[in-house]
Amino acid sequence: MPVPSPDLPRRVGIVGSGLIGTSIGLALRRAGVEVLLRDTDPEQVKLAEALGAGSLWQGERVEHAVVAVPPHAVAAELRALQQAGITDSASDVASVKSRPIAEAVVAGCDLTTWCPAHPIAGRERGGAASAQADLFAERTWVLCPTVHTTSAAVAATEALALACGALPVRTTPDRHDEAMAALSHLPQVVSSLLAAATPHLRPGELALAGQGFRDSTRLADSDPALWSSILEGNRGPVAAQARRVAAELGALADALDHASEASVGKVVTDLMDRGRAGRTLLPSKPGPAAARPWGWVGVVLDDRPGQLAALLTTMGDWRVNLEDIGPFEHSLQAPAGVIELAVAPDVAADLVDRLNAAGWCAYRRS
Amino acid sequence: MPVPSPDLPRRVGIVGSGLIGTSIGLALRRAGVEVLLRDTDPEQVKLAEALGAGSLWQGERVEHAVVAVPPHAVAAELRALQQAGITDSASDVASVKSRPIAEAVVAGCDLTTWCPAHPIAGRERGGAASAQADLFAERTWVLCPTVHTTSAAVAATEALALACGALPVRTTPDRHDEAMAALSHLPQVVSSLLAAATPHLRPGELALAGQGFRDSTRLADSDPALWSSILEGNRGPVAAQARRVAAELGALADALDHASEASVGKVVTDLMDRGRAGRTLLPSKPGPAAARPWGWVGVVLDDRPGQLAALLTTMGDWRVNLEDIGPFEHSLQAPAGVIELAVAPDVAADLVDRLNAAGWCAYRRS
Repeated sequence: MPVPSPDLPRRVGIVGSGLIGTSIGLALRRAGVEVLLRDTDPEQVKLAEALGAGSLWQGERVEHAVVAVPPHAVAAELRALQQAGITDSASDVASVKSRPIAEAVVAGCDLTTWCPAHPIAGRERGGAASAQADLFAERTWVLCPTVHTTSAAVAATEALALACGALPVRTTPDRHDEAMAALSHLPQVVSSLLAAATPHLRPGELALAGQGFRDSTRLADSDPALWSSILEGNRGPVAAQARRVAAELGALADALDHASEASVGKVVTDLMDRGRAGRTLLPSKPGPAAARPWGWVGVVLDDRPGQLAALLTTMGDWRVNLEDIGPFEHSLQAPAGVIELAVAPDVAADLVDRLNAAGWCAYRRS
Repeated sequence: MPVPSPDLPRRVGIVGSGLIGTSIGLALRRAGVEVLLRDTDPEQVKLAEALGAGSLWQGERVEHAVVAVPPHAVAAELRALQQAGITDSASDVASVKSRPIAEAVVAGCDLTTWCPAHPIAGRERGGAASAQADLFAERTWVLCPTVHTTSAAVAATEALALACGALPVRTTPDRHDEAMAALSHLPQVVSSLLAAATPHLRPGELALAGQGFRDSTRLADSDPALWSSILEGNRGPVAAQARRVAAELGALADALDHASEASVGKVVTDLMDRGRAGRTLLPSKPGPAAARPWGWVGVVLDDRPGQLAALLTTMGDWRVNLEDIGPFEHSLQAPAGVIELAVAPDVAADLVDRLNAAGWCAYRRS
């Protein structure tokens, strides 16, 4: 448990005790913060209280308020809090940023005490019952302060994110919305479109759905009302992403319908190479992207004691520095498994040769 | 370990020791079958042997051969096996079926001893090093016998699938290919297209990629050469699916660009409702689809011993039959968690009321 920041509010009010609001309550309670909750649905508050996420907020003064409602409702809830004068600062958790800010301006909100924010975490199932105290652990919590936002409001929001175990990052509302269109909003749409194909199949053919289909359509279980609010709140960037993917799918279909075998192969390979290149850019853990330019070497290990120790001793004797190590892939009852080792890229090929010469079964992982 | 079928071949030859071929070898060895392997890449065979998947196949006679190569290579490998006269029957594992069958006819293959087949299992990383003995456990293994396929060839293939722990199902090649276009081939394409968006983002914005994006793009890590063969081998059905999704994305973009707030909400809700409906059709476990029309009731449990026992005792006293039970969702250090119980749908609402009246915190899961 990290030492709490002096900026961490000691009493936080949460508007909306769904999945995100209740999870923030659970995380803040664990960090010793007093949490008050309210929701238009009394059942959700009752559940959140029973789970230990805080107690009912009946208008008491708080140091910071978290507006944990769908995007379209942020400005009105913020305005109501400010008119009641019961919080020093506020943040929100909405998955779109530009439009709620514009709506807050129109609604006459005080922009100085509000830090627009968005924790990148969620589950397909919403509601207080799905809340988890560690939902934000090592997740990104985006802060999009405007030019009006005071440093005190930013500091309180950042301290709150850290207290929930998240990694705060800052960007502008426009950049946030464009990135989320590509990274979250379009994937959500596509997941629903893929899942919508199954009613056209015969019942027995649904057995042909493998794990890949289940993973690709997991997001389709999400709440339609919430996602209507998100997509409607980020029209331009989502439309641009949808048109990009539609154009690519159309071009692929044209090639599949008309092109030569070689041309189809080229179109597919190009598409997949771009996808693979895109995947390699993702940070290997949430947080700042880190280049990890290791060479990976795989080695088969028998199921005998001391095999890995012998391998690492050999590498040490050769003065080959081990940079990282993968999981030991080993099926139950199989006589052998595979371990993968990361070394400096310029020594990987040589290491494979030396290991094979020394009687190991090694290979270069591409 | 189930009792081996009398139809299970005692000696199997596997052509192609990549992920699927080597995993079949591992599974069959565990079932006591003698396995011989060959591959155009000697490194893959060496790895497969070292992992215990079988030994080098040097043309010895086998009872059954598994052609575990990409779709475009199936007919030629099958023809070579048949010309060598070293196997009684054969099956393949290709992700498309109609085109390899047409190619086998053109190549002059004997169709009577070949059972076209497809185990629905895989990983994003190919090669013998990624093989797993339990890759097929409880997965569907599709058999698409033609009118020419003998019952002996079908029986051998089915016994082999069962020995690998899989669930054999039968369908026609056309239906297989149409279902796979929707359930596997288009999701693969879309995964690559989503992943291809990341190079257009600024480096810091990649921190905004959440777990949903990682899951949605996991398939994009797959092998471009294999997928060129698969998509090229299933042109018509994949093109039709690509056009379906492109048209839907275009309509969504039009709505986002031009429609009223209410219209956008309707378009998004309709799209997501169709996706959710599609997901509910998936078998809850791989295998034949089963309707599971339970009513689900959630109950908050304190972190005190005996809480679940007390709850189930209460339900027993009320003669409410428990049909299924979900995982106990409980964050570390949180004071309470949620358990979800399946009961007959017509008693769920009443059970929630009775539990709340009896002092529990219960809710109806939608």
